[in-house]
Amino acid sequence: MRIDIISVVPEMLESPLGCSIVKRACDAGLAEIHVHNLRDWSTNKHRKVDDYPFGGEAGMVMQIEPVDRCITELKSQRDYDEVIFTAPDGETFNQKMANSLSLLNNIIILCGHYKGIDYRIREHLITKEISVGDYVLTGGEMPAAIITDAIVRLIPGAMGDEQSALSDSFQDNLLEGPIYTRPAVYKGWEVPPILLSGHEAKIAEWKHQQSVERTMRLRPDLLEG
Amino acid sequence: MRIDIISVVPEMLESPLGCSIVKRACDAGLAEIHVHNLRDWSTNKHRKVDDYPFGGEAGMVMQIEPVDRCITELKSQRDYDEVIFTAPDGETFNQKMANSLSLLNNIIILCGHYKGIDYRIREHLITKEISVGDYVLTGGEMPAAIITDAIVRLIPGAMGDEQSALSDSFQDNLLEGPIYTRPAVYKGWEVPPILLSGHEAKIAEWKHQQSVERTMRLRPDLLEG
Repeated sequence: MRIDIISVVPEMLESPLGCSIVKRACDAGLAEIHVHNLRDWSTNKHRKVDDYPFGGEAGMVMQIEPVDRCITELKSQRDYDEVIFTAPDGETFNQKMANSLSLLNNIIILCGHYKGIDYRIREHLITKEISVGDYVLTGGEMPAAIITDAIVRLIPGAMGDEQSALSDSFQDNLLEGPIYTRPAVYKGWEVPPILLSGHEAKIAEWKHQQSVERTMRLRPDLLEG
Repeated sequence: MRIDIISVVPEMLESPLGCSIVKRACDAGLAEIHVHNLRDWSTNKHRKVDDYPFGGEAGMVMQIEPVDRCITELKSQRDYDEVIFTAPDGETFNQKMANSLSLLNNIIILCGHYKGIDYRIREHLITKEISVGDYVLTGGEMPAAIITDAIVRLIPGAMGDEQSALSDSFQDNLLEGPIYTRPAVYKGWEVPPILLSGHEAKIAEWKHQQSVERTMRLRPDLLEG
């Protein structure tokens, strides 16, 4: 899978994409991630990619021309399944969407920055708008990093242990139950004795119960889906 | 405001916290962000901070002892308003929560990693569990970066233009309307003529209408809140 990320602050993505599972997946040839500096497509001598909004308002707006030139060049090199824009008013990102996106071959993620982007970009160049949550951030760089991380770890072989991803929260509409490791007692705080019993069937039953109970208490909406 | 972030992959946070508004807010003395390597609190000679889960399951679990030692040391130096853990089953992060958190003095954010953390950490050391969305990530580092970014940009003076944050999506339960910048026509795609009219009152009315219309169409749930 290939992911092209377009940003005006490409350096912001360096460490999130250069660590942990995403790095290992790239090193292993399972994913290819290219971060493009939008300013490289500016025709302005100061490499400017933003301008004042029409109609007067605070903040600067990302211009359509550099974005169009960048996306057009990428599209001339290969077919893209989706051109994604990260926006607080996009479709809410969830694990199901991560699963779908992880099956695609090539995607572009355009990171917004400044006050916003020229709306014509969204109307004419973007195929999918994704919001990672109901909050406003400095830019779309962290959302792009999150989408990339959530997708890449699902590519077969990316995680050391496939089983681990399958039991993650949300994959079966259940939150994960509590987990514990050594020591069995720390400052008087004990691990539930059932987990030390060695009785596999009872442990599995207890874990499932805990998982259902936690989901009903914390996120009953997941069970309705 | 001071934010202490505890992580086993501290290098993953370098570029998100070293760029843009967060960096400027730190440089201006408006925020102080300290990233701690959890391994510095390990008593193991290999600086190990994880172990196998009790009850047998795939994946490794973050141990309570290094986390407890790190948090205890930080708490001995100053009072903390919240000790936050980023977890997919935590309370869903939104703009309202970002507003509240931005008013605090000192917070700790513990980033989960591996399969999860010993549940006793959550029961005894954490005061607030936050999820940035219904998806599973490699670790809590990107969520911590997101929470930090969303909070820090709200600190008075952090953004160049206060007005800009006030008109962001969610601050008034409305999505932002479309915005445009030059050129007025690009490849035949036109900016709505009203925005070029110079008629301030009509423009303001149009923007509000667009904002309400977009919210009703895309996120009617925001209007019920």
